This record gives sequence, C-alpha cells and structure tokens, in this order.
Amino acid sequence: MTKKISLLGATGSIGTQTLDIIQSNKEQFKLVSFSAGMNIPKVKEITAQFGPEIVSVMQKEDADALQAEFPGTRFVYGNEGLIEVAAHARADMLVNAVIGSVGLEPTMEAIREGITIAIANKETLVAAGDIVMEEARKRNVALLPVDSEHSALFQSLNGENPKRISRLVLTASGGSFRDLSRDQLQGVTVEQALAHPNWSMGNKLTIDSATMMNKGLEVIEAHHLFDMPYDKIDCLLHKESIIHSMVEFEDTSVMAQLGSPDMRVPIQYAMTYPDRIPMQNAKPLRLEEIGMLNFEKMDFERFKALALAYEAGRQGGTMPTVMNAANEVAVQLFMKGRIPFLQIEEIVERMMDNHQSISSPDLETILETDSITRKMVYDMVK
Amino acid sequence: MTKKISLLGATGSIGTQTLDIIQSNKEQFKLVSFSAGMNIPKVKEITAQFGPEIVSVMQKEDADALQAEFPGTRFVYGNEGLIEVAAHARADMLVNAVIGSVGLEPTMEAIREGITIAIANKETLVAAGDIVMEEARKRNVALLPVDSEHSALFQSLNGENPKRISRLVLTASGGSFRDLSRDQLQGVTVEQALAHPNWSMGNKLTIDSATMMNKGLEVIEAHHLFDMPYDKIDCLLHKESIIHSMVEFEDTSVMAQLGSPDMRVPIQYAMTYPDRIPMQNAKPLRLEEIGMLNFEKMDFERFKALALAYEAGRQGGTMPTVMNAANEVAVQLFMKGRIPFLQIEEIVERMMDNHQSISSPDLETILETDSITRKMVYDMVK
Repeated sequence: MTKKISLLGATGSIGTQTLDIIQSNKEQFKLVSFSAGMNIPKVKEITAQFGPEIVSVMQKEDADALQAEFPGTRFVYGNEGLIEVAAHARADMLVNAVIGSVGLEPTMEAIREGITIAIANKETLVAAGDIVMEEARKRNVALLPVDSEHSALFQSLNGENPKRISRLVLTASGGSFRDLSRDQLQGVTVEQALAHPNWSMGNKLTIDSATMMNKGLEVIEAHHLFDMPYDKIDCLLHKESIIHSMVEFEDTSVMAQLGSPDMRVPIQYAMTYPDRIPMQNAKPLRLEEIGMLNFEKMDFERFKALALAYEAGRQGGTMPTVMNAANEVAVQLFMKGRIPFLQIEEIVERMMDNHQSISSPDLETILETDSITRKMVYDMVK
Repeated sequence: MTKKISLLGATGSIGTQTLDIIQSNKEQFKLVSFSAGMNIPKVKEITAQFGPEIVSVMQKEDADALQAEFPGTRFVYGNEGLIEVAAHARADMLVNAVIGSVGLEPTMEAIREGITIAIANKETLVAAGDIVMEEARKRNVALLPVDSEHSALFQSLNGENPKRISRLVLTASGGSFRDLSRDQLQGVTVEQALAHPNWSMGNKLTIDSATMMNKGLEVIEAHHLFDMPYDKIDCLLHKESIIHSMVEFEDTSVMAQLGSPDMRVPIQYAMTYPDRIPMQNAKPLRLEEIGMLNFEKMDFERFKALALAYEAGRQGGTMPTVMNAANEVAVQLFMKGRIPFLQIEEIVERMMDNHQSISSPDLETILETDSITRKMVYDMVK
C-alpha cells in the first residue's frame, strides 16, 4: 500500500533527501503535501514533479502567485499554512524536517490529528519534549526518529525490553573544529564552521555540530524519545561517524547501528519502519576499507555547550526552551557575521543564568518563553 | 518462573560458565541434569552443589561409584546416558556444550522431545545441519545460538525481517597466530597455539581459532541457523573481538552486537531470551578506554582452513561431515604432538579430496561417514 507523506521543510537538506526517497520508491510513497519557505523556484519544481494536494509557503503573495500557476494544488502560507500541511488528514505520515522550534505547533497539531511523525526537527523536542511526548502517548501516536543517532538507538532497541537498558551512548564526530583547542576557536570563520568532516547537513545543524550543541540537543531529544534519565545518556567522540549510536543493556551487551554517513538511511528507515527497503545508490559499509574506528572520551570543558545542554535538560521545565531559543538566535547571528564563534555558547549560558525555570509549563508558556528569549538575545547583541 | 536446565558438557569451558550463571541466578534457573566425561571430582562437586535429577558420565564404573555416593541422583553413562540427559523431559532447555559431533544424536533426541536448545556444539550443525534444522522446524523447536558470533547475529536480527538481510559478517580475532606468516607456522608448538589473545575457551576451540577452521565451522553454522546462502556470509578480521558480528540489511544499515570478550554474555542471553538479566561481575564495554577498533580483509590464502570450510559448505551433503571429522581427529593428533600444526589443514584437505559427497544424507549415513573419516585419519597418521 502506498504511504501518503506530508513533508515540512521540503527544500532543506533532510527535505530534499526525503523527496529523493519518495521519487525512488513511487510504489511505496506519495507526497500529498509539503511546506517550504522562500525558495519559490524549488517549490514550483517540487509541485510540478509530485503534484501534491496542499503546499504551504512563507508569504501570502508567493502563495497567490503559485495558486495561479498550479490550479490543481491548494496553496496556503505562514504559520497557519504550516499547521495545515502538518495536520493534513489524508496523510499517513508527517516528515517534520523544519529547523527550529517553529516546528512545535505543527507537530502538536499532527499528533492531535493522529498522524505518525518521522521527526527530524529536534528543536521541537528540546523546547517542549514533555508536552509533545505526553500528547503523543495520550493519542497513541508514534514519533519515529530521523536523526541518525536516534535512529541508531531506535534500531538497536528493536525487539528489546526497554527496562533492560543500562545506558544510551550517542556518538559524536566532533564537528568541524574537533581538533582545535578553545584558544584556537577564537578566530574561526563561518566558512570554516560550515565544513563538516563527515555529514552533509543544513547550515544550522553544521554550526551546532561545531559547537557540540547539536549533541546537547540530541541528548535532550533522546531523553524524551526513549524516556531515559540524563545519567543514563552518555556521549562518546567517534570521529569516523560509522557507529551511529549504541544501547548498552543490563547484561553488558551493546547493540549498535553502523553505516556509511548517509542521512537517507535513517530517513528511509523512519518511513518504512518496521520494515526496510533497499536503498538506491547507497554505499554499503566495508569496515575492511575503513580499517580503523576511533573512540575518545567526551571533553565537557572543551565542548561547553554540551555541558550546558545537560544542565538545561536536568533542570527541565522552560530551561531547555531558553537554551534552544538562545542557541537558535546566536547561531543566526554568527552566520551573519555579527558575533564570533565562541560567543554562541556565551549567549546561551548568559540566557540560562538569567532565567528562572518554570516547571511543567503549558504550550503557551513555552511559546512565550521562546519568543522572549529570542528578543532578549537580539537586544543584547544590537 | 524458574527455567529447568539440562547441560551437556558441564565440566568444559562453556559448561563451567553455564553453571556460574545458574548459580548466580537461582530464581531464574535450576540444573535438572548434566553430562560430563572423565572428570569425576568435578562431577561430584557439581552434583553436591546443584542436586540434579540425572547425571551422565562416560564410563559405567564411574556411574556405579557415583550412584553409591549420591543416592538422590540417578547416574547413567556413555552415549545412551548423554541422550538421556539431553532428552530429559522435565527440562525446559538443553544447553548443549559438548565438543565435537558426539553432540549430534543427543541434539536430535532433544528436538524430538520438543526441548528448546541453546547450542554451543557447532560441530553438530556442521556435520548434520540440514537434518538438525529440518527436524527443529518440523517440531517447532528453537535452536538458540551460544557462540558469541551467532549470538551477535541473532541479537542483531531482533525484530527484523530476515528477508531484508543482505549479508552476515562474522568477525574473527585471527587467533593465536594471526601475526605469523605461513612459513612461520611451520614450527609452532601446542603451547603457542593454546594461547588465544582474547577469549578464554576450551582447547579444541582455541586450536580451531589458530587454524581459522573455527571461523569456517561458524560460517557453516550460520548458514544453517539463519538459513543464509554462503555468498551472503562474509568474514572480517577484527583483532580486538569487540564487535562480535554484524548483519547488513538491504538499506545498507548494519546492526551489530558489541561487548567485552566474555562468553557468559551470549550463554546467558540464550538462557534468558527474549529477555535479558543483569550479568554478575561483568566488565561493561567502554570504547573510550579501548580507543581503537581495527578491521582487515580476511585472507583466504593465509587461512586455508577457512577456504576449505566454504568449499565443504557449498558442496553440502556429507562433505561438511568429512571436513569436521577430519578436523576433530587432526586437532587431537596435533595436541598429542603427533603431527605439526600445518598438517591439520593438510589432513582436512586430503580427506575432502578423497571424498565423493553424498547429497541429502540421512542421519545414519552421516554417522557412518563421520566414523569412517575418523578411522581413515588415524590410519593415515599411524
């Protein structure tokens, strides 16, 4: 049976790879709706190619112009448009690949609609994991991980009793600057930060990898997705990115998922779960060609952003929301050349220091906290 | 509920570790019967400690003497005794840890009795895999692997669709002589061969590791246990023995089981499957302490016994029976100092060359082929 897919963030890195998978497996998948931002030429291309029912863009004028050109598709826009795509009742699955906490409300709406979610939008789980997971449990909606690390954990838990987990181990490549000391990080440029050694990813994610905040977001995401306390989630430096993550059980057995770094594998796994289908044009893993895998203890002083994320996660409440919002804005400011690299984590730390965490916040409180934090960071740097 | 265990080969390496697990988990397991060979002091010790219902030893006189000393236990002996222990109807599980094809008939009897088998006795599957697996399927009896490699494959297949397997990858430490060339193997001694770098195992298995015949037996075992053609079973040199084996799927995802080398982990997994229980006094895996894992292409010219095993497996019929019988006797002769190390594989090759494989043999043909081969090897070396 063909699985009908809605896709948030169709023009980004994960979105493009999701479209590749749909295109290569037309018997399995059909794109019924998608969202994109301002890349209108790409929106036209995707619309022409897949003939979706609903498309959401950022601005009303773009939606109107597109509507005239493609009368067979309904065009919507803005935040409401995003929600309409996410909660499109004809979809069997939502692939949520937007970047940032903007994905939060659409995720909540899709859950309320009972749609299975393949979630690449980690900021949503960081900003509001308790609320999202509670709603998903209440509605019995599955949230399937797309991040390669969480997909690896998810695959390692196949057929296992989650009560027997002793530890989740997230592997980290170390990002673009893994071989630099903190002193050497002073003068690094945006271009240097965007050159990730292993993975081809979007810019936000690549900067987050360089600060190691990405691993911090993943720790919080893993806490929510697998209902695991923070002291059972460890991080391990593994520069080759071949072991994508591991689960250690009480009998000391460790299950791991490995592969060549290729985001299409975890995306497709979420889309075909619990089954698998062949991966087109993929490079099978040959460890004899790689020869050697390296592992190193995570250094929390070198990678301070990771320590901040554990701290935010342990405090809970609105603290991860603040951490995430501050980080999102700080990364934007760095990419625009407005702040140096090391100031990203300084801003995150300052905002966390200034915040008094509100426990068990509702969705409104979270959205408000997110918005206030963003404004404060902009004001601080102005 | 306490699981009642029968154990074949109680005084060997796997047997001793199985008893450790039973002793450490008295709520989970109870030993109801066991077999041993000539180590009577050890038999007394085990009988006193576990109070089993039936015990089998090799010789009648030993059984009679033991019967007088332990009136609460029934003592039997010889091949019939072995079968009586294996098919003890009160057992929920048979742990078959005897060495060699002597385990074949007891295994068949246990299957006919409908008893789940944890199988460490790889020679049985090599000598008669088709018959054993067919009987197990017919009676719907599970054969759970105990070998660390097959346990790793079995764990990696948890919750997976076996139709999606593209490849099984058995890892091999390389054994005691992995760094020696074929020339350097000329003069090696029994003591050198028995010094395995990673695993603490019985002598037969340690010699088989040094010749790489062990990996060959495992390839044939994997073929039968997982119903996998030989061209989908690969071997990979991995000297640290941390990744115990891997399964590659059609989407290029690879699932692996890792751990410190400790045979108790796979033994216990077979005994608790599908659940896990904590492992007493075990060393959890810390990859940051190990630092590095190495992988190397398997060299079939250096490790000729492995090439012979693939050849025997592909020919099928009675050829693996001959290969296994020749190897068992040759290893015994080497351990007694009667032949040099490299002659083990020469004998196996010669016996295979001399044999015309009989296809779809019945149990009697297999037992006869096994026995003729043994006699021929003894005659050849006399």
